[in-house]
Amino acid sequence: MALMGRMMTDPLLISSLLKHAERHSGDTEIVSKRVEGDLYRSTWREVALRSRQAAQAFARLGCTPGDRIGTLAWNGHRHLEIYYGASGSGLVCHTINPRLFPEQIVWIANDAQDRVLCFDATFLPLVEKVAPLMKTVQHFVLMTSRAHMPAASAIPNLLCFDDLLAAESGDYTWPQFDENTASSICYTSGTTGNPKGAVYSHRSTVLHAYAAALPDAMDCSARDVILPVVPMFHVNAWGLPYSAAIVGCKLVMPGPHLDGKSLFELFEGEKVSFSAGVPTVWLGLLNYVKANNLKFSTFKRTVIGGSACPPAMMKSLQQDYGIEVIHAWGMTEMSPLGTLSKLTTRQLSLPPEQQQRLLEKQGRAIYGVDMAIIDDDGRSLPWDGQSSGNLVVRGHWVISRYMNHDESPLVSVDGEPGWFPTGDVATIDADGFMQITDRSKDVIKSGGEWISSIDLENIAMAHPAVNEAAVIAARHPKWDERPLLVVVKKPDAQLTREELLAFYEGRIAKWQIPDDVVFVPEIPHTATGKVQKLKLRDQFVDHKLPTA
Amino acid sequence: MALMGRMMTDPLLISSLLKHAERHSGDTEIVSKRVEGDLYRSTWREVALRSRQAAQAFARLGCTPGDRIGTLAWNGHRHLEIYYGASGSGLVCHTINPRLFPEQIVWIANDAQDRVLCFDATFLPLVEKVAPLMKTVQHFVLMTSRAHMPAASAIPNLLCFDDLLAAESGDYTWPQFDENTASSICYTSGTTGNPKGAVYSHRSTVLHAYAAALPDAMDCSARDVILPVVPMFHVNAWGLPYSAAIVGCKLVMPGPHLDGKSLFELFEGEKVSFSAGVPTVWLGLLNYVKANNLKFSTFKRTVIGGSACPPAMMKSLQQDYGIEVIHAWGMTEMSPLGTLSKLTTRQLSLPPEQQQRLLEKQGRAIYGVDMAIIDDDGRSLPWDGQSSGNLVVRGHWVISRYMNHDESPLVSVDGEPGWFPTGDVATIDADGFMQITDRSKDVIKSGGEWISSIDLENIAMAHPAVNEAAVIAARHPKWDERPLLVVVKKPDAQLTREELLAFYEGRIAKWQIPDDVVFVPEIPHTATGKVQKLKLRDQFVDHKLPTA
Ligand SMILES: Nc1ncnc2c1ncn2[C@@H]1O[C@H](COP(=O)(O)O)[C@@H](O)[C@H]1O
Repeated sequence: MALMGRMMTDPLLISSLLKHAERHSGDTEIVSKRVEGDLYRSTWREVALRSRQAAQAFARLGCTPGDRIGTLAWNGHRHLEIYYGASGSGLVCHTINPRLFPEQIVWIANDAQDRVLCFDATFLPLVEKVAPLMKTVQHFVLMTSRAHMPAASAIPNLLCFDDLLAAESGDYTWPQFDENTASSICYTSGTTGNPKGAVYSHRSTVLHAYAAALPDAMDCSARDVILPVVPMFHVNAWGLPYSAAIVGCKLVMPGPHLDGKSLFELFEGEKVSFSAGVPTVWLGLLNYVKANNLKFSTFKRTVIGGSACPPAMMKSLQQDYGIEVIHAWGMTEMSPLGTLSKLTTRQLSLPPEQQQRLLEKQGRAIYGVDMAIIDDDGRSLPWDGQSSGNLVVRGHWVISRYMNHDESPLVSVDGEPGWFPTGDVATIDADGFMQITDRSKDVIKSGGEWISSIDLENIAMAHPAVNEAAVIAARHPKWDERPLLVVVKKPDAQLTREELLAFYEGRIAKWQIPDDVVFVPEIPHTATGKVQKLKLRDQFVDHKLPTA
Repeated sequence: MALMGRMMTDPLLISSLLKHAERHSGDTEIVSKRVEGDLYRSTWREVALRSRQAAQAFARLGCTPGDRIGTLAWNGHRHLEIYYGASGSGLVCHTINPRLFPEQIVWIANDAQDRVLCFDATFLPLVEKVAPLMKTVQHFVLMTSRAHMPAASAIPNLLCFDDLLAAESGDYTWPQFDENTASSICYTSGTTGNPKGAVYSHRSTVLHAYAAALPDAMDCSARDVILPVVPMFHVNAWGLPYSAAIVGCKLVMPGPHLDGKSLFELFEGEKVSFSAGVPTVWLGLLNYVKANNLKFSTFKRTVIGGSACPPAMMKSLQQDYGIEVIHAWGMTEMSPLGTLSKLTTRQLSLPPEQQQRLLEKQGRAIYGVDMAIIDDDGRSLPWDGQSSGNLVVRGHWVISRYMNHDESPLVSVDGEPGWFPTGDVATIDADGFMQITDRSKDVIKSGGEWISSIDLENIAMAHPAVNEAAVIAARHPKWDERPLLVVVKKPDAQLTREELLAFYEGRIAKWQIPDDVVFVPEIPHTATGKVQKLKLRDQFVDHKLPTA
């Protein structure tokens, strides 16, 4: 008969992260560049107090366990307080990407059934417009102080976040509950069809936070000052708000100011040692630093992911600025960390160019996730650095199902079920270094944000002069990928590039509109009539975008 | 209604650590200095294969889930294979401290109801003597190859470990089961009365392995070569066999050779970067290195714990050899890691002497454990670096009960139940730095091993010329503490120091015999008649042992 362990078995809860930071690093600073323009200095102790007050405030608004608190917000202490206040009290923090088209934002808030929506002042005009369409939201909360509340608003009963907190004592004990309870939700548009929600649990979040802080991952310690450039609405800023609490380090929140100058000044002013973000953001920072002949004095390493890190960017950060670049790969469906590129003892004695080539790969899996590459029949392929196949993953922080979707997205590997298909195509070498070589899912990733090819195609097809349309990703030096629209006109129809692009205005977010249109006599199809995207991408692999 | 997460929920199992190391670091070396004298080079892949064979072999011997596999063994690949083979297959790995007195070893094996006993050749004479007394052990397995099996043995049906493995295919799938299942057992004699077993679970072990590898703890990465000097029978070598699998690094196992020369040669030969052990072992290594005017070429940092690290040793390692010393505190009942002394960003700007004083403390709690100091009425004391109180802990890898003891050892803090009393007395400062100032439990820790004062007192009291006896810890430069026997003779009785010490021979392990005896006219008592150990210790605080 199995013998049971005789250990304490407290659940792995997000509130325990905050309690740890409060007790063991209470005086450590949380610095926020706020929408209101000021630089606000808080501490883990104050964030913990205000998170408890936020929990009390949500309860007073009538929220009960499981209710969703939507956010439309930048990185800042108030957003952090909502993270911990909502999840810690058994509610679910639902971060919404404000860069989406308003209709998508409404769709997502309705799909998640958000009960409260908290948002930064930046998004007041947006929220005023969409509030009537958000069917389940009962309370709109502006994340600001009384002094910054608008005199009047189209939103009836607009609430003030700081006021709600001030009305509470903070005398609150975080409840204990099942660690598999939902803690937060993040929608991805990196799939076909409507955006889909990944529903993280307390357990998955805490385990991810442990793994993310490991030396072979983000290497977070109490000696770090962390500035998450990656937004808190992008897979929880890659878990940094949680890993920072584990190690009790200083956090610097950049708010809406992600341009090179603002970031550089914040890095220097607050002595930032570590950061993380998508390549596009580093490009802006690097350009500013180069143009002004500046040097970083404390910035030591950065994780770059979300899109492939261009080797030239990696080299410049490493060689011109002495910054260690850790190339990482992950996805919303995996909380997000999957692999990071860090060398092993043995590899440290390879010639520098070989080391560099390894660092340019997406890297090795951290313990807690496993991966495999498979052929179209689900047979696993060898880890020889050559064979390329569909990348599948499993692990403690990988989703098993999407929000409101009962069908399982999982596939089998060599007959063993339970693997999540990433939609990426990759090789893996004998040391476990994975490299993304292609993408099987039909989406475009521009500056870290997804664009759905299908949405763009449907709009084009709605134009009376279009016979068939296909959208593929074209390389772009700044955004990594931008949409390229390939069109077959109706016989004898008249249609210009400009007319077609103008047709997109108002039908989709501006930044999602294709960068270019090519008219072709025909689009390649498979035997079953599907567009052969791979062939099309090959055909336009050297296409030069007018914006590039 | 609570919303549940939609994440994969595989149990946290020890087998997943090994699977990860095998898949992602299969070629990485495990090097073992073996009892047989050779230096054996294995890999994570081979250890994984042999662990699966060990699992099959234990099953073939009739073991079923929950059965205990006892070990009496040094650090080596076969011990590692038993760790993973037993725990991974649902059995329980019970490491026995071979330094205990044979009667204690028998008592422990019987209390744990070990079904199989695996042991290194070093311990063959011991096991031949005690085998008939081990009531539950059905199979005795010598951890060696056929070539090194003795021609004859007093143990009937003595089995050969390598033969058992060779008979199995290794074609074995690790079973899935409840993560709270027992994985391993370690007895502590650091309590009053008989030794007590801590029963670790898979969950507690995996969570501890994550936390132990963090940058603020042991900072383990794939760029490390780890040599655990701390034995695998001391709280699982402080979890290093598990953390090494998480990061997939090279492991170097020293076998029985822990003298300065052997260690130094292994450190240099295998390019060891990181190690961990009790102060006594570092003393031997340091003395050897100093005497021979040597330098370490790859050794970068070490964790020292189990007893207070003497500041002079810390300084010498840091300043003469450039080795980072991480002072750590923990105990068998906490798997064992509780605190480690690593500085925070803010402290790095303190004057060097202040930094040094912080590093000499036992350090800060890693996330996953929490601590408090309380007065005798269970009221928590302030974290001011001054107030000293009973240190209590709680967390994912802290025991809730001992093996075969149904009563809970836990206490309340400010009315909140569920804290484990460590028997240590400590201060904690505002930054969470804990410092052990005293010990309330009545035991002596000599070179990392416990000696029970009560056992020593009982033996003395059995001598016809002794009226009353009390044993306290006296400072020793090599062993940290050694037992000092304080005796009140019977009126007019004749008794010398030498006679009394001779009386201990054969009644207790040689290394546990007191170093000195002092005869006193009386021993101080409390009102209720208990010996006032604190007062006695004060009285003999400057006592110079003849062995010192
Ligand atoms: N760094 C340390 N400084 C002082 N005492 C320690 C230290 N580490 C462990 N100990 C003592 O060893 C005990 C645990 O012993 P054990 O269960 O054998 O690991 C603790 O309760 C302390 O009394």
